Amino acid sequence: MNLTLREVAKNVGGTVVGDGSVVLSGVAGIREAGPGELTFLANPKYERYLADTAAAAVVVSAQYRAAAEMNGRPLLVADDAYRTFARVMELFSSADTSVAVGVHGTAVVAESASIGEGAAIGANAVVLEDAVVGDRTVIHPGVYIGRGARVGADTIVHPNVTVKWGCVIGDRVIVHSGTVIGSDGFGFAPEGDVQKKVPQVGNVVVEDDVEIGANVCVDRATVGTTRMGRGTKIDNLVQIGHNVVVGEGSIIVAQVGISGSTRVGDRVVLAGQSGIAGHIEVGDRAMVGAQSGVTKSVPPGERVSGYPAQKHSLSKRLHACLMQLPSLFNRVKDLEAKLRDLERKD
Amino acid sequence: MNLTLREVAKNVGGTVVGDGSVVLSGVAGIREAGPGELTFLANPKYERYLADTAAAAVVVSAQYRAAAEMNGRPLLVADDAYRTFARVMELFSSADTSVAVGVHGTAVVAESASIGEGAAIGANAVVLEDAVVGDRTVIHPGVYIGRGARVGADTIVHPNVTVKWGCVIGDRVIVHSGTVIGSDGFGFAPEGDVQKKVPQVGNVVVEDDVEIGANVCVDRATVGTTRMGRGTKIDNLVQIGHNVVVGEGSIIVAQVGISGSTRVGDRVVLAGQSGIAGHIEVGDRAMVGAQSGVTKSVPPGERVSGYPAQKHSLSKRLHACLMQLPSLFNRVKDLEAKLRDLERKD
Amino acid sequence: MNLTLREVAKNVGGTVVGDGSVVLSGVAGIREAGPGELTFLANPKYERYLADTAAAAVVVSAQYRAAAEMNGRPLLVADDAYRTFARVMELFSSADTSVAVGVHGTAVVAESASIGEGAAIGANAVVLEDAVVGDRTVIHPGVYIGRGARVGADTIVHPNVTVKWGCVIGDRVIVHSGTVIGSDGFGFAPEGDVQKKVPQVGNVVVEDDVEIGANVCVDRATVGTTRMGRGTKIDNLVQIGHNVVVGEGSIIVAQVGISGSTRVGDRVVLAGQSGIAGHIEVGDRAMVGAQSGVTKSVPPGERVSGYPAQKHSLSKRLHACLMQLPSLFNRVKDLEAKLRDLERKD
Repeated sequence: MNLTLREVAKNVGGTVVGDGSVVLSGVAGIREAGPGELTFLANPKYERYLADTAAAAVVVSAQYRAAAEMNGRPLLVADDAYRTFARVMELFSSADTSVAVGVHGTAVVAESASIGEGAAIGANAVVLEDAVVGDRTVIHPGVYIGRGARVGADTIVHPNVTVKWGCVIGDRVIVHSGTVIGSDGFGFAPEGDVQKKVPQVGNVVVEDDVEIGANVCVDRATVGTTRMGRGTKIDNLVQIGHNVVVGEGSIIVAQVGISGSTRVGDRVVLAGQSGIAGHIEVGDRAMVGAQSGVTKSVPPGERVSGYPAQKHSLSKRLHACLMQLPSLFNRVKDLEAKLRDLERKD
Repeated sequence: MNLTLREVAKNVGGTVVGDGSVVLSGVAGIREAGPGELTFLANPKYERYLADTAAAAVVVSAQYRAAAEMNGRPLLVADDAYRTFARVMELFSSADTSVAVGVHGTAVVAESASIGEGAAIGANAVVLEDAVVGDRTVIHPGVYIGRGARVGADTIVHPNVTVKWGCVIGDRVIVHSGTVIGSDGFGFAPEGDVQKKVPQVGNVVVEDDVEIGANVCVDRATVGTTRMGRGTKIDNLVQIGHNVVVGEGSIIVAQVGISGSTRVGDRVVLAGQSGIAGHIEVGDRAMVGAQSGVTKSVPPGERVSGYPAQKHSLSKRLHACLMQLPSLFNRVKDLEAKLRDLERKD
Repeated sequence: MNLTLREVAKNVGGTVVGDGSVVLSGVAGIREAGPGELTFLANPKYERYLADTAAAAVVVSAQYRAAAEMNGRPLLVADDAYRTFARVMELFSSADTSVAVGVHGTAVVAESASIGEGAAIGANAVVLEDAVVGDRTVIHPGVYIGRGARVGADTIVHPNVTVKWGCVIGDRVIVHSGTVIGSDGFGFAPEGDVQKKVPQVGNVVVEDDVEIGANVCVDRATVGTTRMGRGTKIDNLVQIGHNVVVGEGSIIVAQVGISGSTRVGDRVVLAGQSGIAGHIEVGDRAMVGAQSGVTKSVPPGERVSGYPAQKHSLSKRLHACLMQLPSLFNRVKDLEAKLRDLERKD
């Protein structure tokens, strides 16, 4: 997306100083910015980079205006340069919305599917029978929306996502590429030496304002619903088992795995690569450390780490002990020697 | 999929009591069921939910018939309500089979490819030269079947799966969305500071009755075959390296990684997030604990856990010791004090 | 791909002995090879399999020529049978290049996109506005190349890959199926109980000669660039956070996760399932053990392992101590008993 500095100012506010017709193709940090890019200065630490930045224009707080003007570069002067730059970032990030409103000629949309007003269905996307896509929602190229699935309004489904039959996605949700919502839960009943598949006929509900990263898997419930609560944010390559329920506003970092039927509360943080066993509860505002293995329920507000996960304070204590183990062995050896001496004298 | 209660009964057996024309759109647990859904009652623990369930109809065992009738809801009375309900689940799970038999107009199928009788090739699927798709197999939208790949009969390949050239998938196999079968093995030969690619020209064979989860990777062999044995079940986000051989009826839970050339036996269980080193053997019926790191071969039937993985009994003992470490430090401190006393007296 | 032995010889060198018209469909090890396949013999250990191999022809070193001829099978005699066989593997691996040069009729390529000479754009691929695809590059079916993304020359992008807007991929790069390049970084700013999305407007740069496995995620930078340095090789299911910079010639094994803003040097090895915290540095030629959790910067050349990761020598020492813990407990118990005896006598 190319915008002039004047157009940027019209969108995000601030005062243009210098040539407002300079064309901007993107944004970058003051050291990384190249020609055609807009950068910003809001922190005195970075003022020294002002003279040498290759940026085409700079968003500055009023206090740096004089210094910045000396460099002759076009400026966008704002009360709060950082906040204004954040708005500029949002403006340029809309460069991603390259799906035209309406249904692309190569998309396959069932007659019984319902496409909302202002929605955009990209090239080679597939929307099956009885599926619903809400107003202003963007379905990117290569996405599959299964039979009877419902996607809310103002939602973005990135390229090559799969949403299986009957799953429900709320409003203002973002689902990144490669993610699979509603694959079968991992349910088998052993019959002798054969593992017989248990049909998985529940669904997945992703509530409003959730964001799900790339190549995530959220399995459908065996019966009932696997649920991601409102405002929860999920990073890439996360595994959510069948019938898991995650509360509101939780943070699930990359490569976490949550086994079937576990309940994760509100505003919980699960750090990267941690694993949560099945059929347990992680209470509200609990925090699970990176790579931890949680094998039993965690009370609300508790911080746990390690494998198997313990209270974080205990984990730290055990770790400190572990680090002193070599010296402990020496101390015991020493004691044994001294005791032998005493016994001999005895 | 919408079915009347009478149609359900015709498919799964049982006696309709009350209005058989009620329309059912799905199934759910007795507490979760909403209007239009069918639920079941097979366990006295749940009888108290009968009065308040929103379900449109209930599958009940004969023993609950009288109690259930009092609630005036249409019933399907069966000898074994649970088993009957399981059949109902299978019936509704066929809602997924929303790919029409034949080749969709937007699918790209090479002339030299062979498509079996009753097979269904979905929208925007791609089947390349000399590929074979067996009878009644469903290739969902967006799937890629590479040159010369062979998919058996009665197999389901879910949306956006990639099966690379020359790979072989058996009968009654299920492959979930986003999974990649036959990507190149991770093979490089260092030449000075450069890692030179070793060509990967083997393939992957997935035997009959295997199920593979979503976003799984099974790499093709360098030379020869990476093999998933008959009836083995693989969960989501699992990594299978090149030339790995997994036996029959094994269970590989989510996010497990198996490094190149390792052999996993029959009916082995690899719990979630465990990692298996390359070029080793995990014997038949061995069990590997969650998050374990297996660095050397595991004898048949052995249970291992921890990192590096030990016999599970030893791991538990070591863990118990670890938990007592703080008190051990105190005991040693105590001993040192007492010994100093004795030495002083001496 | 079917080739006669004579055609193979023309491509890779060597002397045909026996029937050069035998048709070969692939390659395999001497024990695994079936009819129609070419195998090789370069190691005396395998000579005994020569009589019974089902292979249609054998590449042999001159020294085995006499023995091999006795078996009557067509031969390709070469000075270095292993090296010649490696060339044969490359020859057959080109079987994957089943995308015809030009743009497939079902691909969707924006008018403003630029497609290089000899490039191949597969079925149902999507190349958006202002994107650039270099000469001789192969874009396989189902791939998405976003707005303004640039892919270099002689690069292979396998089926169902997603490259988001503005990302840059170099020359001779290989990206395997299901991988997502340029998904949003996991950036949120808490506002009270709500996690507000931080726009992610940087990009990803994948330098020349990089190979990226299947179902990998490389997040775009918040601002600036997430960079994979020249010649680095990344295995399957790896997570690369926003603003991460990886140097040249590094090896990142399957299921590794690297958190945001971390810098990984040149020729580093990160073994499988290891996790690297955010905002730290892993120095050149450092080695991180499998499943390790690296929580602080690692000096160049250092080898670390364990959780939290320590110098590998220390990790090994701690592990040895841990294994002796049960006996240490016994020794302390013993000391306590003896001391009690001494005290009693005292």
